[in-house]
Amino acid sequence: MTDHSDYTVSIHYDRRLYRQDIAGSKAHAAMLSKQGIITQDDADRIIAGLGKVQDEIERGDFPWDPALEDLHMNIERRLTDLIGPAAGRLHTGRSRNDQIALDMRLYTREAIADAVAALRSVQGALAQLAERHADVVMPGYTHLQRAQPVLFAHHMLAYFEMFQRDIGRFTDCAARMDVLPLGSGALAGVPYPTDRHAVAASLGFGEISPNSMDAVADRDFLAEFHAAAAITMMHVSRLSEEIVIWSSREFDFVRLADEFTTGSSIMPQKRNPDFAEIARGKTGRVYGSLMGILTVLKGLPLTYNRDLQEDKEGFFDTVDTLLSTLRVFADMLPGMTLNTERVESLAGESYMLATDLADYLVGKGVPFREAHGVMRRLCQHCEAEGKSLADLQLDEYREFSSHFDDGVYAITAAASVAARDNPGGTAPNRVAEGLARARNILREAGAE
Amino acid sequence: MTDHSDYTVSIHYDRRLYRQDIAGSKAHAAMLSKQGIITQDDADRIIAGLGKVQDEIERGDFPWDPALEDLHMNIERRLTDLIGPAAGRLHTGRSRNDQIALDMRLYTREAIADAVAALRSVQGALAQLAERHADVVMPGYTHLQRAQPVLFAHHMLAYFEMFQRDIGRFTDCAARMDVLPLGSGALAGVPYPTDRHAVAASLGFGEISPNSMDAVADRDFLAEFHAAAAITMMHVSRLSEEIVIWSSREFDFVRLADEFTTGSSIMPQKRNPDFAEIARGKTGRVYGSLMGILTVLKGLPLTYNRDLQEDKEGFFDTVDTLLSTLRVFADMLPGMTLNTERVESLAGESYMLATDLADYLVGKGVPFREAHGVMRRLCQHCEAEGKSLADLQLDEYREFSSHFDDGVYAITAAASVAARDNPGGTAPNRVAEGLARARNILREAGAE
Amino acid sequence: MTDHSDYTVSIHYDRRLYRQDIAGSKAHAAMLSKQGIITQDDADRIIAGLGKVQDEIERGDFPWDPALEDLHMNIERRLTDLIGPAAGRLHTGRSRNDQIALDMRLYTREAIADAVAALRSVQGALAQLAERHADVVMPGYTHLQRAQPVLFAHHMLAYFEMFQRDIGRFTDCAARMDVLPLGSGALAGVPYPTDRHAVAASLGFGEISPNSMDAVADRDFLAEFHAAAAITMMHVSRLSEEIVIWSSREFDFVRLADEFTTGSSIMPQKRNPDFAEIARGKTGRVYGSLMGILTVLKGLPLTYNRDLQEDKEGFFDTVDTLLSTLRVFADMLPGMTLNTERVESLAGESYMLATDLADYLVGKGVPFREAHGVMRRLCQHCEAEGKSLADLQLDEYREFSSHFDDGVYAITAAASVAARDNPGGTAPNRVAEGLARARNILREAGAE
Amino acid sequence: MTDHSDYTVSIHYDRRLYRQDIAGSKAHAAMLSKQGIITQDDADRIIAGLGKVQDEIERGDFPWDPALEDLHMNIERRLTDLIGPAAGRLHTGRSRNDQIALDMRLYTREAIADAVAALRSVQGALAQLAERHADVVMPGYTHLQRAQPVLFAHHMLAYFEMFQRDIGRFTDCAARMDVLPLGSGALAGVPYPTDRHAVAASLGFGEISPNSMDAVADRDFLAEFHAAAAITMMHVSRLSEEIVIWSSREFDFVRLADEFTTGSSIMPQKRNPDFAEIARGKTGRVYGSLMGILTVLKGLPLTYNRDLQEDKEGFFDTVDTLLSTLRVFADMLPGMTLNTERVESLAGESYMLATDLADYLVGKGVPFREAHGVMRRLCQHCEAEGKSLADLQLDEYREFSSHFDDGVYAITAAASVAARDNPGGTAPNRVAEGLARARNILREAGAE
Repeated sequence: MTDHSDYTVSIHYDRRLYRQDIAGSKAHAAMLSKQGIITQDDADRIIAGLGKVQDEIERGDFPWDPALEDLHMNIERRLTDLIGPAAGRLHTGRSRNDQIALDMRLYTREAIADAVAALRSVQGALAQLAERHADVVMPGYTHLQRAQPVLFAHHMLAYFEMFQRDIGRFTDCAARMDVLPLGSGALAGVPYPTDRHAVAASLGFGEISPNSMDAVADRDFLAEFHAAAAITMMHVSRLSEEIVIWSSREFDFVRLADEFTTGSSIMPQKRNPDFAEIARGKTGRVYGSLMGILTVLKGLPLTYNRDLQEDKEGFFDTVDTLLSTLRVFADMLPGMTLNTERVESLAGESYMLATDLADYLVGKGVPFREAHGVMRRLCQHCEAEGKSLADLQLDEYREFSSHFDDGVYAITAAASVAARDNPGGTAPNRVAEGLARARNILREAGAE
Repeated sequence: MTDHSDYTVSIHYDRRLYRQDIAGSKAHAAMLSKQGIITQDDADRIIAGLGKVQDEIERGDFPWDPALEDLHMNIERRLTDLIGPAAGRLHTGRSRNDQIALDMRLYTREAIADAVAALRSVQGALAQLAERHADVVMPGYTHLQRAQPVLFAHHMLAYFEMFQRDIGRFTDCAARMDVLPLGSGALAGVPYPTDRHAVAASLGFGEISPNSMDAVADRDFLAEFHAAAAITMMHVSRLSEEIVIWSSREFDFVRLADEFTTGSSIMPQKRNPDFAEIARGKTGRVYGSLMGILTVLKGLPLTYNRDLQEDKEGFFDTVDTLLSTLRVFADMLPGMTLNTERVESLAGESYMLATDLADYLVGKGVPFREAHGVMRRLCQHCEAEGKSLADLQLDEYREFSSHFDDGVYAITAAASVAARDNPGGTAPNRVAEGLARARNILREAGAE
Repeated sequence: MTDHSDYTVSIHYDRRLYRQDIAGSKAHAAMLSKQGIITQDDADRIIAGLGKVQDEIERGDFPWDPALEDLHMNIERRLTDLIGPAAGRLHTGRSRNDQIALDMRLYTREAIADAVAALRSVQGALAQLAERHADVVMPGYTHLQRAQPVLFAHHMLAYFEMFQRDIGRFTDCAARMDVLPLGSGALAGVPYPTDRHAVAASLGFGEISPNSMDAVADRDFLAEFHAAAAITMMHVSRLSEEIVIWSSREFDFVRLADEFTTGSSIMPQKRNPDFAEIARGKTGRVYGSLMGILTVLKGLPLTYNRDLQEDKEGFFDTVDTLLSTLRVFADMLPGMTLNTERVESLAGESYMLATDLADYLVGKGVPFREAHGVMRRLCQHCEAEGKSLADLQLDEYREFSSHFDDGVYAITAAASVAARDNPGGTAPNRVAEGLARARNILREAGAE
Repeated sequence: MTDHSDYTVSIHYDRRLYRQDIAGSKAHAAMLSKQGIITQDDADRIIAGLGKVQDEIERGDFPWDPALEDLHMNIERRLTDLIGPAAGRLHTGRSRNDQIALDMRLYTREAIADAVAALRSVQGALAQLAERHADVVMPGYTHLQRAQPVLFAHHMLAYFEMFQRDIGRFTDCAARMDVLPLGSGALAGVPYPTDRHAVAASLGFGEISPNSMDAVADRDFLAEFHAAAAITMMHVSRLSEEIVIWSSREFDFVRLADEFTTGSSIMPQKRNPDFAEIARGKTGRVYGSLMGILTVLKGLPLTYNRDLQEDKEGFFDTVDTLLSTLRVFADMLPGMTLNTERVESLAGESYMLATDLADYLVGKGVPFREAHGVMRRLCQHCEAEGKSLADLQLDEYREFSSHFDDGVYAITAAASVAARDNPGGTAPNRVAEGLARARNILREAGAE
């Protein structure tokens, strides 16, 4: 028979939690001695021993042993080697069930902080792009069809807002998971006069978990983190898609910096937007891991079941994917060059202004639906004649509606954009407001 | 060629949004006249006409026409029939893109309120169960193996806490989506002096969306709702699984009320827990719809794309599934009878107390790991001899450790439970605290 | 307390199975009488009665009663009304567990036949497009960057091959599920001398299920159908994406027929490819339902559990989505007009021929990697000079490699395409082979 | 700026494809020389060099360089070091796009062979368990409620049939993907007189891919493999769930061998079925990776996009998870001990025989629905009286129906089981047929 011990071993991935595990153990030992559950002397030895363990791990000297299966047992064994039987007292009033729940919360808390910081950097890059091209008009699209002129800055700030919501989701997740599970024991609590609030305070938790059975069975915070990450990656995939489309020769809107494209060895015009494509592709694994953790938890009775060991690899992968992707975008976006001439010329294409012409008629008192009818007929006329709206004489305009006058020639892409002068609209002053809002958010977050 | 117009028609499901759509239109019309964009007279006619439309819909008299494809066009056409050309003025400063974004937010806001209310009812039922059996001890499980005695009330309150977090997620989602998208136009804002803040106030939104391109492309709130619903259903599936297992003859822990079981026509002992099974099964469709909306949004360029029409059916299904399931549980749980005698007898099974005996030795100064070793050998001895721990004489105990004394006989299920007297633990006073916390939460929420 | 009976009722969706249910019942009754388990007279009455039931349903006269919960009970009750107590004998040697398993297999079998027919139609449309533009050269893309010229027909036939594999998956699924589950009883088989092979033959099944417990618990065929549908929709989403991109003004490669676009009311150039967008969006719900059924089945113990009722709605939705989408494409593709002039002009853009020039050097004996280096330098030179490769004099070519001669000017898009003359390549004769293969496949399938 | 080159590097996981890559290159080189595209001498050098590379990799001496990003470049660079410029000729008529497509197919083909072999081993273990307990009767369940007695062997063979279908799915996938993609070039085919059929034959492919654009863009085979793996893991999760439930003290049906449980350090009765729990949990990651690859492929235009690099890690993880899980079960099942006494005693519980008593009445001419009514009343009577059916006197029976006679006492669990004597039923001879079928399948597969 094959040796299947690998199947249950987790040390190759849960060792990643060593800092969290040691911090938790130190706080626990300190509390135990403060409460008189173990001696001060034992606590000192444990805490010093754990410090050595951490040093060994960080120096690469730690004797990891897969036969000890997981991180906890590896550390416990080493601690025993280092300080003797006192090591055994560390486990008073604690079980692996509440210990791993603690480690995962500590780790997730840091992952959220990192994700928020990375999102801030991406937001900063977007704000910078918006600022750099504050007055460039480009075609705005619906259905990937040119619809109305918009400011490029407005388009960039749309993504700023998406990432702002992402930060909100991560922050809410952090607030909701801000409870110390330690002290829940295997499932029922512990029969020692522990001081859970002291441990919570020492580890920076705002609260303690109110129910021990829930605390050891709960992986909601991981599912919620995954969901927030999936939505963030969805945003990234939308931006990536636009970058890929804009980088095509047919659109030719932007040019990425060399280090974020892969040239073909022989086709110099080929600037494959590989980073954007990979980011778009990585959306898949994050969606998948969300589905993975939800599947793991479906139908699990209380309290701890070994299925829960499967909460880690997908999570670590999602954390890595999210952070590396966001950091790529934070660095890639500032180097993206906008082909200003091209986007401005397309933005001025006359049919894009048809809505504005309709609005102009409305301004003259024509009911909205009627104004639309006029414009539809007018555009059909242009198409049949092979003309653009800009080519028409006033006489021709007036054949379609007597409300047209010279003002019709004042309707340009710039005018169209300027006219969307309501809050949230694409008029330059409104976009400036959006940018000020963005800058303010970043400043308050200490991100600039 | 077949007629494919059905493929794009949404009226069979988006009619569900009629109240939201009409409320939004009324607020828009009122603002337009207040801003002098349309006349007071037109606004009055529009608002009265919309009132009639709503009446017709609610009376079942509305002439729905699939050829008009969607809700907006059906209402617009009917309004035109009722009030004439003034109806055309309603669409000034608005497009279907920001209109549907508004409708969906209004609907989601109500769905969240309903979900929270339903969750409160389930929490109430759990608190009631906990209260009714405040002192019943049952086996607590890890790995579906009996582990340590716990209070049944503690077990019920574990679910109370899960649903409490679910409420938090829905509430956060509501807060994050509390922005009015109307005024974003098709994508770029609108060229009219609208007062978006007035419309927001009139419809009860706390803020307005800060970027028009984002506002019409954003379906984050649906993805976030789905994620919150998926986690809630995951909790329901865990509770369902326990109810199914507890209802088996082998466990025989609980008995559901007749109306929540399906008997076999001939096997009277068969009380199939169909509602719990269906609830567990319905977890699948909610997970699926979460994956559905994430897939729809993956890689979509800005701004509106028709793919977004696919945001509704899965969402409505999730809302219906979530609400009906929670309402079933709110009514099913109070009628669930606990087989007190059975769970208490199992809770007293001696091996379940082995951890407590180890803790007892620790209390006598034995290091934790050593105490564990004593108990392991002692239990092996019992198993070899066919005895239970309760059968052992003190002499036999003392063969394994000289620290044993008469106090060993005071270790019972009740004592074990009582000893877990730290916050969050299963000791009766701690569970009473948990129940008080629960009652307080419900009271503050106005749910009792 | 609310009435929750709706929660378990399935008649609003399982009535869709009425033809399958009645066909199964007729075959069962006929077998029962042939085996002497019921009388010939009873069987005749049952079969006649079921015929009436079917007529009533199809005429819209059937008295559906939600209180009877599901299809089986509705039909049974009506049959009893129509023919009296003999109706009770129909259920000899059968349970609802094997009956619904039968109905679902019969339905799935038809759904597969419909899906294959619809896929054949799409393939036919692709073959027709390929034929119509047999010699049009267009840019082939990698990374959405122009890479090498290809025939448009070759591009269309790539999708033909994808759908060919889809047909294979559906066909394999049909073959694997071609077993009669009836005769499995509730879970253990039936205590009557039934003739399962006779029922199988009468209903067109190739085999009978070999294990009764598996037969009533098995929904593999639904998961497999969903997976095949998900992959098919993935293919559709790829084609849709291309149609959306090609329909943009920037690409301007194709023009869809009016009935498959939605114009803007005022922008005549706007031909929103709504059908393609909706199809791309509908990929989400099919992925979701796949995840749904897998979640339902995860961790279910044998044999029948009520969770299995949740196998239907997602499945019916997937069948409807798949069929309607494929039928849309079968009708939309033939009306898609290729902008031949545009794609051919882009295909001749000189950098796209760089690979061919490298291959030309290889043909002169230059090692592949070295030839690539020459071309890279040459293209950089062109870019620096603002020239295209086509503008270069032979002298300039020869500055980079002495192997260049007059033959260099024979390298055109047409020549490039013609040179890919290996099986599966884009040379016209190879594409003609691909088309012949396609026509042959369709002919053998009786699809043309 | 951070160095983001890691983001695109794949060498840490694609090195796993080295055998496939080298085998493909050797076959390609041999063909090139046979076709006169490169010299025999070059081919010999290349093939010998690749042999050295493979030796180095397998000895652990290969100088892997992340800066070279992927496997192909690592091997190419090393080959150049070893044999000089001839190495450059290997890439004639090949691109990385068709090369990686080939590597993945070769790898998948082996993974399928391994999966089938592992599934055969699990089937063998199930057949062995069935054989070992050929005549043990146990309770059969629906809704986790005891329903009817079945043979334990029948229950085991139900899983045999599930895994048999899994093998079918993997085998179909292997047949469908049995085409050589090499020769498709970057996307358009290659301009050399290659002999694709020769390469296919040399690498054991049955066919060559018929369309080059499809060939480099196609990852269907991975999605199909994932779907087959997901369904297999679903089966494993069902079996795992049963093992977990059966291992509870309350059921106490089976005992796993020590090496497949984790005892608690102090509770000797605790035999946590960790392997079964982890297997059930691992279902999540496989479902997740299926969703991952489908998401990656959604909406990708032709042909190669860098997103496709994301096809590997999830796939490798699924292969590892699937194989290790199946191998665990193949070794765990034979050591699972059935608690024969317990399951047989529960199987004889009288209410489980109620269906048989109804069938007995049917045998006396009572219509089925009427017989059910008799039994329902009879069972209610028993319950009210606190009796079991077995306790009733014939007189009591006859109060409910005059058709009862002495034969009623012959209805036992064994008789019930024996009566299900139709094909696929649980009668011992029918289960023996099922076992013979299983043995035959295994024998024909060379698996025993």
